[in-house]
Amino acid sequence: MGMTITEKILAAHCGKDKVVPGELINCKVDVVLGNDITAPVAIKEFEKIGVETVFDKDRVVLVPDHFTPNKDIKSAEQAKLIRDFARKHKITNYFEVGKVGIEHCLLPEQGIVGPGDVVIGADSHTCTYGALGAFSTGIGSTDMAAAMATGEVWFKVPESIKFVFYGDQLNPWVSGKDLILYVIGQIGVDGALYKAMEFTGPAIRNLSMDSRFTMANMAIEAGGKNGIIEPDDITLEYVKGRTKRPYTLYTSDPDAEYFAVYEYDVKDIEPQVAFPHLPENTKPISQVGHVEIDQVVIGSCTNGRMEDLRIAARVLKGRKVHDRVRAIVFPGTQQIYKQAMQEGLFDIFIDANVAISTPTCGPCLGGHMGILAKGERAIATTNRNFVGRMGHPESEVYLSNPAVAAASAILGRIASPEEVK
Amino acid sequence: MGMTITEKILAAHCGKDKVVPGELINCKVDVVLGNDITAPVAIKEFEKIGVETVFDKDRVVLVPDHFTPNKDIKSAEQAKLIRDFARKHKITNYFEVGKVGIEHCLLPEQGIVGPGDVVIGADSHTCTYGALGAFSTGIGSTDMAAAMATGEVWFKVPESIKFVFYGDQLNPWVSGKDLILYVIGQIGVDGALYKAMEFTGPAIRNLSMDSRFTMANMAIEAGGKNGIIEPDDITLEYVKGRTKRPYTLYTSDPDAEYFAVYEYDVKDIEPQVAFPHLPENTKPISQVGHVEIDQVVIGSCTNGRMEDLRIAARVLKGRKVHDRVRAIVFPGTQQIYKQAMQEGLFDIFIDANVAISTPTCGPCLGGHMGILAKGERAIATTNRNFVGRMGHPESEVYLSNPAVAAASAILGRIASPEEVK
Repeated sequence: MGMTITEKILAAHCGKDKVVPGELINCKVDVVLGNDITAPVAIKEFEKIGVETVFDKDRVVLVPDHFTPNKDIKSAEQAKLIRDFARKHKITNYFEVGKVGIEHCLLPEQGIVGPGDVVIGADSHTCTYGALGAFSTGIGSTDMAAAMATGEVWFKVPESIKFVFYGDQLNPWVSGKDLILYVIGQIGVDGALYKAMEFTGPAIRNLSMDSRFTMANMAIEAGGKNGIIEPDDITLEYVKGRTKRPYTLYTSDPDAEYFAVYEYDVKDIEPQVAFPHLPENTKPISQVGHVEIDQVVIGSCTNGRMEDLRIAARVLKGRKVHDRVRAIVFPGTQQIYKQAMQEGLFDIFIDANVAISTPTCGPCLGGHMGILAKGERAIATTNRNFVGRMGHPESEVYLSNPAVAAASAILGRIASPEEVK
Repeated sequence: MGMTITEKILAAHCGKDKVVPGELINCKVDVVLGNDITAPVAIKEFEKIGVETVFDKDRVVLVPDHFTPNKDIKSAEQAKLIRDFARKHKITNYFEVGKVGIEHCLLPEQGIVGPGDVVIGADSHTCTYGALGAFSTGIGSTDMAAAMATGEVWFKVPESIKFVFYGDQLNPWVSGKDLILYVIGQIGVDGALYKAMEFTGPAIRNLSMDSRFTMANMAIEAGGKNGIIEPDDITLEYVKGRTKRPYTLYTSDPDAEYFAVYEYDVKDIEPQVAFPHLPENTKPISQVGHVEIDQVVIGSCTNGRMEDLRIAARVLKGRKVHDRVRAIVFPGTQQIYKQAMQEGLFDIFIDANVAISTPTCGPCLGGHMGILAKGERAIATTNRNFVGRMGHPESEVYLSNPAVAAASAILGRIASPEEVK
């Protein structure tokens, strides 16, 4: 019997010809990632281990993106701890304010991760890099500490679920965000618990790299161990001249075994909105009804890339944000920031009365730069709408794609871009 | 005996032909200003007064600029309180995120203040508008509440001190910031306690509007009640087509009486650096010595205008921020942001690894977006370097002009732009 792409990558990283779901393996990792929330804990644990240096200064990646530029004294101390560690261990991929971006936008952009890699990160959305055909998953700070010392980590090989997207009649306002929200709506937030979520089919083959990142990014919102998409020409186009290490293209065998197979026709999928307080509470935009909003957030590791900013700008062009609404854009990285600026997207945003932030995770996790007061409601292109996620426990977050978020900013209520006249 | 410009403006606003220093007057105000720290207190006091409406919905100005986009739940609640009040009272000049800028950059830009006005604001740097030939001063939240209800406020007419700047050999790296830091260094932080600081002389007549704003802005740092500059062609050029209400140009009489007169020759003034922990601890840049820094802040109500960003960009062009340093630029308003972007300054900043923030007071007052950890040192174009002003009580802030700040960002220590090769 053959193997899935996930099984092949894991086998290659534990020196075996074959692994099977449920098997415990000790795996070499290509990249170990931490941010300004998780790395300080990991660093303290690392120092207890008593090794002199990290296993590879080029493969430990530190991205202080959550509370930077420093929100307060506490976050300043956290950031300083990482900075001091990065200097001491001569970490190649430490990103200071001014170079930093949102980690899951930054690592692919900077060519730090590539197809066939095993990447672990002390951040739940580390699953993003599966869009490149890597095995990539979130771990805890203690695992991060051990992996910084050894370059290895224990895994139980996950079973795989195949999600096949057929059809070529994609609604023009539907992007990767809608496909993944639709899946989560179908299977629930634990519908893929500890499973490898493999996204495939003709509609995925036609999907842009940015939309693929968005899909893999949200695998964790269905409980997935990882999200993964077989690399193809679109992947290669992206990694060409970017990914620095050699990489390997894996694909699933035709006779690979899956725990389940789900099949969808994209023509049935409208833009989706996830209602509070779970990403599984999805409704197609046509069934949302009248939901007034106070804030719009466009950005994050889920939707802070060029495709996202371009479509938001397309909707906002020549229009104004509703008087009742504050709208904030968070470009994913400094490169994205600069490109969006040079393409004229910032002119559109500013003329529409949108605030543009320096790259940061910002309000997505209730960090800073757009926290909600009691009773306030936001629509966001982010990934989680748990209770209190963006501020007060009695605030609400609705999740959508950037086009819906932009349309909602204009109309002051959750709206389809088709309603914007 | 004649009157000073300050006395003339106050006399005109209390219906008298003449006022004298020490006299208590009840003064009509043209503008009452509050921000997201002070206005919530004022609004609660206002509601105790029991009047139905504010005295004039066009003259109460609310600018939530300190902790926005909302830093945390508490600041979100403060911002909501202002927003709700602004809606209830149909406040014309309420500025939402996306339109908001740093209050003292925003009010002149939007033509809300003009020559001859009496402006009070529940923010100490309200003295900024004296650069337009207005009487403008900071008040407490309770005074703001009363003035919102009545449009009037009590003042003791201040004595005036005249600061005369002679000479035309201005060091090319010297701006208004250096002139005012020099003055504060000479007279101390209480050297002009409750005095009107009138800046005049040929060197002031040649000074740009942006540099004048910087000088008036820091009058409070010498204890001044207000800072003021007689309006001239440069003033008129600025207010033309911008200031919406009729305005009056006042000048001091030749026989006006001054508490003191200080005279300087600008050729003696180098770029200044104020050492911790008082703005009076100034040294000329040539005597600063080796002071390594961790952070550079360019912006604020003191130095967040086009002249400031242009000179910072001139120094940073084609160069990189030092590896040890994080540098952050805070444009004063969305208009300034857009203009700086369109002039290519942002390309220079990003290529130099500078982070660009949406307009906010940010770290200047230890708010957010660049707080210092224990033992860290910043050079900032802001106005105060008190203990813990930008973060941890054991951090340090050095004040300078934007050129020195930019040079310091490159060299990783406090430096003159002349040292940048």
